[in-house]
Amino acid sequence: MSSSFGSIFKISTWGESHGAGVGVVIDGCPSRVPLLAEDIQRELDRRRPGQSDIVTPRTEEDRVEILSGVLEGMTLGTPIALLVRNKDHRSSAYDEMQHTYRPSHADYCYDAKYGIRAWAGGGRASARETIARVAAGAVARAVVKALFPSTDVLAWVQQVRDCVCPTSPAEVQRETVESNIVRTADAAMAEKMVQLIRAARNAGDSLGGVVACTVRNCPVGLGDPVFDKLEATLAHAMMSIPACKGFEVGSGFAAAKLRGSEHNDVFYMEGERVRTRTNRSGGIQGGISNGEDINLRMAFKPTATLMVEQDTVNDEHQEVKLRGKGRHDPCVLPRAVPVVEAMAWIVLCDHVLRQQSVSCLA
Amino acid sequence: MSSSFGSIFKISTWGESHGAGVGVVIDGCPSRVPLLAEDIQRELDRRRPGQSDIVTPRTEEDRVEILSGVLEGMTLGTPIALLVRNKDHRSSAYDEMQHTYRPSHADYCYDAKYGIRAWAGGGRASARETIARVAAGAVARAVVKALFPSTDVLAWVQQVRDCVCPTSPAEVQRETVESNIVRTADAAMAEKMVQLIRAARNAGDSLGGVVACTVRNCPVGLGDPVFDKLEATLAHAMMSIPACKGFEVGSGFAAAKLRGSEHNDVFYMEGERVRTRTNRSGGIQGGISNGEDINLRMAFKPTATLMVEQDTVNDEHQEVKLRGKGRHDPCVLPRAVPVVEAMAWIVLCDHVLRQQSVSCLA
Amino acid sequence: MSSSFGSIFKISTWGESHGAGVGVVIDGCPSRVPLLAEDIQRELDRRRPGQSDIVTPRTEEDRVEILSGVLEGMTLGTPIALLVRNKDHRSSAYDEMQHTYRPSHADYCYDAKYGIRAWAGGGRASARETIARVAAGAVARAVVKALFPSTDVLAWVQQVRDCVCPTSPAEVQRETVESNIVRTADAAMAEKMVQLIRAARNAGDSLGGVVACTVRNCPVGLGDPVFDKLEATLAHAMMSIPACKGFEVGSGFAAAKLRGSEHNDVFYMEGERVRTRTNRSGGIQGGISNGEDINLRMAFKPTATLMVEQDTVNDEHQEVKLRGKGRHDPCVLPRAVPVVEAMAWIVLCDHVLRQQSVSCLA
Amino acid sequence: MSSSFGSIFKISTWGESHGAGVGVVIDGCPSRVPLLAEDIQRELDRRRPGQSDIVTPRTEEDRVEILSGVLEGMTLGTPIALLVRNKDHRSSAYDEMQHTYRPSHADYCYDAKYGIRAWAGGGRASARETIARVAAGAVARAVVKALFPSTDVLAWVQQVRDCVCPTSPAEVQRETVESNIVRTADAAMAEKMVQLIRAARNAGDSLGGVVACTVRNCPVGLGDPVFDKLEATLAHAMMSIPACKGFEVGSGFAAAKLRGSEHNDVFYMEGERVRTRTNRSGGIQGGISNGEDINLRMAFKPTATLMVEQDTVNDEHQEVKLRGKGRHDPCVLPRAVPVVEAMAWIVLCDHVLRQQSVSCLA
Repeated sequence: MSSSFGSIFKISTWGESHGAGVGVVIDGCPSRVPLLAEDIQRELDRRRPGQSDIVTPRTEEDRVEILSGVLEGMTLGTPIALLVRNKDHRSSAYDEMQHTYRPSHADYCYDAKYGIRAWAGGGRASARETIARVAAGAVARAVVKALFPSTDVLAWVQQVRDCVCPTSPAEVQRETVESNIVRTADAAMAEKMVQLIRAARNAGDSLGGVVACTVRNCPVGLGDPVFDKLEATLAHAMMSIPACKGFEVGSGFAAAKLRGSEHNDVFYMEGERVRTRTNRSGGIQGGISNGEDINLRMAFKPTATLMVEQDTVNDEHQEVKLRGKGRHDPCVLPRAVPVVEAMAWIVLCDHVLRQQSVSCLA
Repeated sequence: MSSSFGSIFKISTWGESHGAGVGVVIDGCPSRVPLLAEDIQRELDRRRPGQSDIVTPRTEEDRVEILSGVLEGMTLGTPIALLVRNKDHRSSAYDEMQHTYRPSHADYCYDAKYGIRAWAGGGRASARETIARVAAGAVARAVVKALFPSTDVLAWVQQVRDCVCPTSPAEVQRETVESNIVRTADAAMAEKMVQLIRAARNAGDSLGGVVACTVRNCPVGLGDPVFDKLEATLAHAMMSIPACKGFEVGSGFAAAKLRGSEHNDVFYMEGERVRTRTNRSGGIQGGISNGEDINLRMAFKPTATLMVEQDTVNDEHQEVKLRGKGRHDPCVLPRAVPVVEAMAWIVLCDHVLRQQSVSCLA
Repeated sequence: MSSSFGSIFKISTWGESHGAGVGVVIDGCPSRVPLLAEDIQRELDRRRPGQSDIVTPRTEEDRVEILSGVLEGMTLGTPIALLVRNKDHRSSAYDEMQHTYRPSHADYCYDAKYGIRAWAGGGRASARETIARVAAGAVARAVVKALFPSTDVLAWVQQVRDCVCPTSPAEVQRETVESNIVRTADAAMAEKMVQLIRAARNAGDSLGGVVACTVRNCPVGLGDPVFDKLEATLAHAMMSIPACKGFEVGSGFAAAKLRGSEHNDVFYMEGERVRTRTNRSGGIQGGISNGEDINLRMAFKPTATLMVEQDTVNDEHQEVKLRGKGRHDPCVLPRAVPVVEAMAWIVLCDHVLRQQSVSCLA
Repeated sequence: MSSSFGSIFKISTWGESHGAGVGVVIDGCPSRVPLLAEDIQRELDRRRPGQSDIVTPRTEEDRVEILSGVLEGMTLGTPIALLVRNKDHRSSAYDEMQHTYRPSHADYCYDAKYGIRAWAGGGRASARETIARVAAGAVARAVVKALFPSTDVLAWVQQVRDCVCPTSPAEVQRETVESNIVRTADAAMAEKMVQLIRAARNAGDSLGGVVACTVRNCPVGLGDPVFDKLEATLAHAMMSIPACKGFEVGSGFAAAKLRGSEHNDVFYMEGERVRTRTNRSGGIQGGISNGEDINLRMAFKPTATLMVEQDTVNDEHQEVKLRGKGRHDPCVLPRAVPVVEAMAWIVLCDHVLRQQSVSCLA
């Protein structure tokens, strides 16, 4: 329950930060999807710690091993098990946290829920958990691409504190995003964001921001009415990413201020294709994709671990002081980009597969 | 799939706007929960059309019938089937829509997905679908209240266009909310909002807004790590409500602008209880409730049906004009309030029941 | 959980024997399947009480109402809700059972599990529950037939006490089965079985037996390896039918006595089609259909309600005597035949729909 | 889908016979269950190849590694990932099977279903898949034992060809079962069975049989009415074991020959406990455990791989000859015993956890 996601393309992730490793089992992947370990590794490398000076210096190679479900570069239709071993886990850095609850971390809640807690490095609440998401996302991408080669998912850092990237979703280019270490869509803004993050890191502080994501050439008809609307399952997926505090699709909160006559997207024909003149719907109407770009925005809070002293309590319910240790991202945004893309691919893949049975007679 | 929700407290809703009725089957409700038809009817009356001049004038009594699962005011542990018959369905008002796609409605997407569509009144995409949510929510509320009597859910209209209710979540009172037809938390603001909505209605236009929701006295430990974080399942639930475009928990998008040192909620002891000084986490940390108020905000777009002429296309892919007919809400917000509360109760109930097995040895 | 079945073609049934009615919601039915109320009613009429003198005389019309999901004889892809009202429920006949546990009935276990029980007529444990199965089965049949018109499911009574129908599965004809009130496949044996059942009824006693079922022209490739093998899901479905005590596929328990050299089904080519010379596998190998007839056998125990006095205990844990009242089948087999067929269709339909995504690239 | 099982205690298994290994992820295990690798290893050792001369000589150590979910001998409530590496896989022995379908094996069906197949050693259809079941079963056992220490599951070989073990289920002792290599419950019969199996092995042939299983001191109230009856989920579990062809609970097929007056189990009081005089119900009534022993019987067909020449076809649909190679069990029964026990524990554990929410107010 807690660590499974998807209805047909079903992923089950596992692994504590300072345990043997992290991984995922994917049950429900179609057969005959071309898939290589490199396809997965490439995405893992994008979320890897230590890739620049504005992310955590924990040194992990994060090599993926495909344990099952793939034969000679082709999926078998059987479960795909992926394993990434943990290497650089220095539990000693966490000794103090064995009994002390870090503010705005999951420590207290885990203890309250389970009566036990893998305290070293946050256990399951560590960002290492997202390795399994990124690995599964790479497989989901391979499935969607095999069926719809032109569909693409692109995420970028749209905001860090008060620095806002001015590029519109339709104009964002992957090359630009990957060419700067903060993964924003504008080179000039990238510089400013990097400086902000370095300053926060040097102050032992951290920063929040916004990751935006666009799905291009999404097939029409994905998403189910009522509870599993495409935006609802995307919201579920995105809000499950650690530190995510808000989600918008299309007009988002801006819709609250608009009149219907200002918000509606009128239809027109572009050749044989039904299009909308504007896209405040964000590519989804009635919970179902309409073929326009799906535009999402996710707010991330600043990292909770600070290298400053904070008030807190311990597991004997005494009030104590705590100063953060360990290695942490001063800003999770750059490494959240591949995680956001992975979750989008996973949701799309599940809906693509669900649609196979929904429409088999349509 | 499309119309089922929940993992233990599992609801399956059904019904088209202009069919025989709408309803829900609840599988997984514990036995021996006190439940009367009145408990459900009271909530249905809050979402009923025709309750004031700022909502749709469709006249539906929306009487619920409990078909199964309850004996002499007590749940049996077997499935609870609830039925609400449709009465005032004038399909003739929708004749034009049989072949023409209403802008920003689900019509085109349903046709693309299913190759068929219950065109009268929007079929499954009608707001009548939310009857089943409200009915199921009343049952969920009964379950949670039976186990945790002090837990409560309260929603209100926080914004309509540029009118923003100034009351803080902790100060909102149910009596105030229910004492004005727009269901906002401040009497003076209620007047302004009502005037705005009447003006929009008279212009054949519509308005968006924000519904806020707070959960008070939530038990500690609800929500599962990783994918079914409490905020992720709440986001799923809320974003599945028709017209919902954005979701925030706690600090929400404001978190993007903050430093960690500004955002963290430090712990302290209040007697035997672990508390946080601030509540930017919104009552959830690591996906698990920490006992503080859970604060949510949901953005709703303006109703898509306008009584003005709009450009669109038909199902033969010709560009045509359409003027809205039928009876519609100029602003869905007042009637969305009980729907938001229902979805919150449904999510809480599911997590309360999930927690029974998670913690049976803790 | 308790009353839901299927992974894509998901049914949720509800209803107590002496409540308002029984019904089912089907979520996950594809769109554009031709479906009329008559298709469902025809099957309900086959399981209806009062259809002959060897079944229960309870007089119920069992008229089905399609509440949603169908428009002008075609499924919409949205949930299909089916309702059958209860009419002839004489709870007074059950007064004694309010506090006394009928031997080999579910009364005691329901009380132990739920702490409450719809005692009149067995509540959810009544055979009326199977109405929902038969109704859902008719929809499942329509789906499979729309995709694979030649696939067929045929069940019959193969044994009542020591009367065994000699007809081999491959030779059973539907006309013969439907031409006798016991629904066996041989006219002469039908006479003997009817006499046995009448004698049991007159003695206030009841009889067990075996229902056999064959699936003809099953598409190759249905069923999933490992846990959801076709025979495993069929066993789940069949063993969930009230009174079912045993399940066999192909050689069944006879396999226990055989050598591999006696049991193996060797392959050969019949034109373009891979066939097996024998069919001890029962049409399933490795959990997946191989295109040969799927042959099943289900053992049913004799009805537990007897018109004789029996020892038992009551809900105050006192030892008491009980004599059966109410109206009951002296032998459930004739009416179990359409229930067995329905469950087979439901399982096949689910696997047919699952296969759409499994093989979308194969 | 294909390789997941359980509703709360949810297991996802993976692994091909000649791939990197096999394993399982368990999501939904409660926290604070005592669990050591030795608890799992002990059960794996019981199903290990090479443990005697009547099972396959493949030499695999089958060492389990707990990758996650356990801290210092106690479950964390997070997913438990278990890994067993494959070692002795000689794919060359299977070269011929790359294109030729072994009779009564899954080869043809996998190709038909997936369009691809891990041909070496049967891939996912290999008996190695059951390692993951046994490992998960050991965890399930730990959960049930933590809550109900006296509950126990005991399986044994009751029949091999025409050798039938005379010991009644209530009298079977674990020490006897584990004291002979065939795992039957009577020492004298064990000798005969071993001789039968050796003779079959020497002839290049194989044998079928029956495994019986009894659950002692099962808590009352497990199992859900309607579809997830305890016997239905047990049937699903057992019939999913490779080579299983039949399933019985309690009276099983013998019920078909009985009158109700011969079959009913009348209730009486044994002190404070409701008991039945006989146990033809097999410990389950109305799908719910009644506290009596749960008695099951499972028929297993003889191993399909024979060291004799057989007719078959290849993947180019030519008729060819095939002689079995590789290392195989002449009789799967002895090694099926721990697999049957594991599946019983998994089902019991799931129902025990489901019952936590069902009865939280009862």
